[in-house]
Amino acid sequence: MRILKLTIAYDGTDYTGWQIQSARRQKAAGRRRTQTKPTIQGTLETAFRQITGERVRVVGSGRTDAGVHALAQVAHARLRSAIRAHALQRALNAVLPPDIVVTKIEEAPAGFHARFGARVKRYRYRIVTGGVVLPFERRYVHHVRAPLDVRLMRREAAALLGRHDMRAFHKLSRPVADARRTVSRIFVRQRGRELLIELDADGFLHGMVRSIVGTLIDVGRGFRPPGAIAAILKTRDRRLVGPAAPAKGLCLVRVRYRKPVCAG
Amino acid sequence: MRILKLTIAYDGTDYTGWQIQSARRQKAAGRRRTQTKPTIQGTLETAFRQITGERVRVVGSGRTDAGVHALAQVAHARLRSAIRAHALQRALNAVLPPDIVVTKIEEAPAGFHARFGARVKRYRYRIVTGGVVLPFERRYVHHVRAPLDVRLMRREAAALLGRHDMRAFHKLSRPVADARRTVSRIFVRQRGRELLIELDADGFLHGMVRSIVGTLIDVGRGFRPPGAIAAILKTRDRRLVGPAAPAKGLCLVRVRYRKPVCAG
Repeated sequence: MRILKLTIAYDGTDYTGWQIQSARRQKAAGRRRTQTKPTIQGTLETAFRQITGERVRVVGSGRTDAGVHALAQVAHARLRSAIRAHALQRALNAVLPPDIVVTKIEEAPAGFHARFGARVKRYRYRIVTGGVVLPFERRYVHHVRAPLDVRLMRREAAALLGRHDMRAFHKLSRPVADARRTVSRIFVRQRGRELLIELDADGFLHGMVRSIVGTLIDVGRGFRPPGAIAAILKTRDRRLVGPAAPAKGLCLVRVRYRKPVCAG
Repeated sequence: MRILKLTIAYDGTDYTGWQIQSARRQKAAGRRRTQTKPTIQGTLETAFRQITGERVRVVGSGRTDAGVHALAQVAHARLRSAIRAHALQRALNAVLPPDIVVTKIEEAPAGFHARFGARVKRYRYRIVTGGVVLPFERRYVHHVRAPLDVRLMRREAAALLGRHDMRAFHKLSRPVADARRTVSRIFVRQRGRELLIELDADGFLHGMVRSIVGTLIDVGRGFRPPGAIAAILKTRDRRLVGPAAPAKGLCLVRVRYRKPVCAG
């Protein structure tokens, strides 16, 4: 079987997230809402089936939560069909809804795994400060009217660099065996009306970026003392963490992989 | 009565355009579709009434067609209410749907008229060339898969500079007495995946930008000979004009006014 590496952009607004939900979770969701939104993964698998007739499992580099977007999520799929990658891409985009777009399909080397092979992921969080949110960006930014001290936020965020036990930033929905993650780059910068926060790490716990961003917003508003992030990493005390920032401002912007040992 | 100058951004996707339609046009539209989309102007006037209790007429700098967007449409409104401009802006944005946003409200000098006072308007047309359209931009760009010769397009577009009879680019829906318009700036440039076309003029005929862009796309694809635009301006022959480019790529980005003679 071939392994294909897919790069996918999506507007997560109208989805319950990347991952297909188990029957139990779907049932629980069904109790709360009359209509369950689709998942990105499920929508992709349906499109594959329409095009190739095969039941294809699309394995993502990781989950993204309900409402979170992706500029370049990476996934793999094992396929029998001999359809050429470029033709498959066009066919998938023709049947996919316009808020999910396959931006690239490549043949992947044997053994390629979108999740286990992912080395560094980058998430970007967009905040519009002050003024108004334009209609064109309303699905993709979080609006904070209060002034934010960006220099203070950047200084605080620097404490995240390196390898830390991140359990305090973990959303308490699923237990996690090892909460240590390595943050290799942090970017906190005002660009015009927008404040961008980017994080590169070898992995992210559930809800981690949104909890970090929420805490940094509290720092920027002066609600938390200097050293707040360092204290959280040291004490692992969830009570020191700010409220999670909303999903719509978050976007998975890239996933990096190890160079294959031999060309597949 | 006060006169207020409003600056408004909107995503035109779900609107029949700026202008409130006459009962006759509404009826005609009703025959084609079961549900008529609202207008930007009508939605703003309803919001004004909700906030102030007054029947306010919101007069725009000009119409934008169904599906056309605005980053900074300008309008004026005469108001009895003494509500402060900033409070009014926040109240309007609280009741307006999220695809219409009032970005600014200022007190305007006596005699200010959003349409008659407009000196120069700028429209921007966005084309994504090749590849795929991302979900985030799908409502705001026109996708042209075929390669476009941007230098050729720029050279052709230059013929539009200055004062010309533009009737060939006029959509034949309404008669026009004087079709001469002055184009003061043209910008045709590739920026990454995007080809931007901007036009500044003292006024625009109905459908003019989309006809010009459609013709320039034909030029860029090699479907029209060099000198095509100059020939259209000279002969005023509509048959030489390309098909109108779709509305979704078009955006009114600014409207400039004469400096008031005395500070109002």
